[in-house]
Amino acid sequence: MKKLVDVLKKNSLQKTQEPKLTSRREFFKKTGTLSAIAATAISPLTLKGDDDAIIHHPEWGQVWGDPVTKNLYGMPSKYEHNNTRRYTKLLASGNYRASIAVTPIHESEGIITPNGLFFNRTHGGVAHIDPKKYRLMIHGLVKKPIVLTLEQLKRYPKVTRIHFIECPANGGQEWRRPQYNSLQFAKGFMSCAQWTGVYIKTLLEDLGLKPEAKWMLAEGSDSSEMARTVPIEKVLDDAMLVWGQNGEALRPEQGYPVRLLLPGWEGNLCVKWLKRLEFASEPWYAKEETSKYTVLKPDGKAIQHFYANEVNSTVVSPSPEKPWTDLKDGEIVEIEGLAWSGMGTITRVDLSFDGGRNYVEANLKGLVLPKCWTRWSYIHKYKKGERLLLTSRAMDDAGYIQPTIDEEVGMIGVEGVYHRNAVETWEVTENGEVNHVQIRS
Amino acid sequence: MKKLVDVLKKNSLQKTQEPKLTSRREFFKKTGTLSAIAATAISPLTLKGDDDAIIHHPEWGQVWGDPVTKNLYGMPSKYEHNNTRRYTKLLASGNYRASIAVTPIHESEGIITPNGLFFNRTHGGVAHIDPKKYRLMIHGLVKKPIVLTLEQLKRYPKVTRIHFIECPANGGQEWRRPQYNSLQFAKGFMSCAQWTGVYIKTLLEDLGLKPEAKWMLAEGSDSSEMARTVPIEKVLDDAMLVWGQNGEALRPEQGYPVRLLLPGWEGNLCVKWLKRLEFASEPWYAKEETSKYTVLKPDGKAIQHFYANEVNSTVVSPSPEKPWTDLKDGEIVEIEGLAWSGMGTITRVDLSFDGGRNYVEANLKGLVLPKCWTRWSYIHKYKKGERLLLTSRAMDDAGYIQPTIDEEVGMIGVEGVYHRNAVETWEVTENGEVNHVQIRS
Repeated sequence: MKKLVDVLKKNSLQKTQEPKLTSRREFFKKTGTLSAIAATAISPLTLKGDDDAIIHHPEWGQVWGDPVTKNLYGMPSKYEHNNTRRYTKLLASGNYRASIAVTPIHESEGIITPNGLFFNRTHGGVAHIDPKKYRLMIHGLVKKPIVLTLEQLKRYPKVTRIHFIECPANGGQEWRRPQYNSLQFAKGFMSCAQWTGVYIKTLLEDLGLKPEAKWMLAEGSDSSEMARTVPIEKVLDDAMLVWGQNGEALRPEQGYPVRLLLPGWEGNLCVKWLKRLEFASEPWYAKEETSKYTVLKPDGKAIQHFYANEVNSTVVSPSPEKPWTDLKDGEIVEIEGLAWSGMGTITRVDLSFDGGRNYVEANLKGLVLPKCWTRWSYIHKYKKGERLLLTSRAMDDAGYIQPTIDEEVGMIGVEGVYHRNAVETWEVTENGEVNHVQIRS
Repeated sequence: MKKLVDVLKKNSLQKTQEPKLTSRREFFKKTGTLSAIAATAISPLTLKGDDDAIIHHPEWGQVWGDPVTKNLYGMPSKYEHNNTRRYTKLLASGNYRASIAVTPIHESEGIITPNGLFFNRTHGGVAHIDPKKYRLMIHGLVKKPIVLTLEQLKRYPKVTRIHFIECPANGGQEWRRPQYNSLQFAKGFMSCAQWTGVYIKTLLEDLGLKPEAKWMLAEGSDSSEMARTVPIEKVLDDAMLVWGQNGEALRPEQGYPVRLLLPGWEGNLCVKWLKRLEFASEPWYAKEETSKYTVLKPDGKAIQHFYANEVNSTVVSPSPEKPWTDLKDGEIVEIEGLAWSGMGTITRVDLSFDGGRNYVEANLKGLVLPKCWTRWSYIHKYKKGERLLLTSRAMDDAGYIQPTIDEEVGMIGVEGVYHRNAVETWEVTENGEVNHVQIRS
């Protein structure tokens, strides 16, 4: 058991330097120790009986496929029609225009969410902007106020970064009482993508920020006119204006042609369909940062100017949508999850099998980047009939660790739905079903 | 000039550790030195006249947008309809079923190609496989021959990696005489994605590879029955069976539900719609590795067992599709490109303004990963009326450097279209148009 974990751990991080070619000799040295353990993982089908269908399948092995001229912009397989965003009336107002459609986290792989599945939160519906008519105004406390066309904006030197965007209400519907029994609805108010655009600090090196500028207003051009205020420290750190998402233009749902990206901070601040940046010496106290998107405390008062999504994690597999009902006794299975922090880089993830009383350290996988989804996993030998309480707990390099629910209630009370990042627990029942449960002391 | 380059360089690499917050004081110290240079970059529009349309645009600022229920799998903006794959009759046979549709590299951003734009090369058309009926046979020199369902395959511990896939004929149509004057047709026989699947070495730890196994046959289940042989060293190094692409299931065009991925090696080897892996002591000499996909030498003989796509690069912007016709005299512009190597990690890219006689070092951007697209750029001050011959030249950590066309001809002659990785040149004309030209000594 330990050895398989070690081998997988060694292979798990994507390094900037290529590992050396494994020699055949080394491989066979390893195989001896591992195959006996892993051999239980899969029950092989017999070769007989399957051969014919494998060799020349009548449905796809004996007929022409589609020509390459058919879909010049490709689409998923028709068999993947269930892998979509989902919505619920409970989270909607304004005829689903002030609403959200959430990402199927349980189907996610790696750290990239495809654009078609990126979560979609709007306050006035999805605007469709003609890029030729698009204008961005930058004014207030800058030496050279400006109105830019999209082409002019794109001419600034650009950067590409992989970051998650998360609604601060992610998990908020579920924290007091799990009601959907679904990973998609519990944690799907977030996605992660490769963003391309320009650092605002690069723009400001051109436009000249006045020294008294301490806040930036970002305003959207859709019918809701979303407006939020951002402290200048964040603007000058890593704030970006982005037009590219996963290698193509932003989708209309993500603010085509340009949105604000504040890596790690509340999704609501990352204003879509951006039309205006204004610099000033005081914050604006816009509607969406006073009536909403503040952090309620136990005494009923709210914390303003609290923006970063704190360190968080979830078990992705198993989950309510990915149960273990077909696992056999003794089967080796990879428990896999995601961790993320708006304050920095994930340094460690722990996994508990008893709802948070005892933890073991999980294994970080692939790329580990700041303010970005990070995959982790733990190899487990499944015992038929066992009941588990799977709880994950992440840490970041800003020094934060996910609190228990009780600790979180102590800090921000019970009323608010924002910034809920306490640990969450999946119950794996004796027959392998998975339920979202809550562990309180 | 030098200083702006330095600042951009400092910001360009995505580190695993978060940079420190820029202080306002530091920012203003910098601004003084840079704004005078960069200020020429953009000609500001006047604020007047544009205001009304910016503040409440009648087409999208005063009407509801689409509800979130409209597209549960999202699509690009209708204004992006020109950003698609393209095909040409010259590269087609079999009614576009043995054909290719190529990626719009000139529109690419970062290192991820969205699945809808990933290049699509087929030999019998795009097969549509029912994942419930899918079977993968693994047999030959293994101790435990097996037939796996998709669900069983997915239960092995998985890995996620970002790698390009490139057809070894990429650039081959263009090398002798540029004929399309298009980056898309010159270099679009490749794309780059995040792949999720299982290392074949992990599978073989379970199935037990016999010591006499030295080659692996991979066979596709589509009507062309693509079959290729892979040396066992590559199989045991980083060969993967992949089912996930950019966070969702493989597209049918990419071999849904499972393809072979041999990072950095010829795309043709990465067999799609994979149905069979067989292990043996000798190579198969399959049709596609004897009649095609070999490297012709000047003497008319062919090099077999030559698989890795060698170090390569291109200038993406400007390019024939992204000319400089609207640049003004003195404008600061970012010359941007891609570099990649199937043998390792890009270590350096040089850029020439005179067709390869003199070079300056360009700046690597974002993530720099093995066998992966790597972005690079160089900040240039445009002089109206100048004629340039832009040539890029990449190096990798395996010690390779792109050859000149003459050097390449010396090594592999003039007949073959495969493995052409000589440097390529864009002519920027006096009025900013861009042409693919060839520089020979």
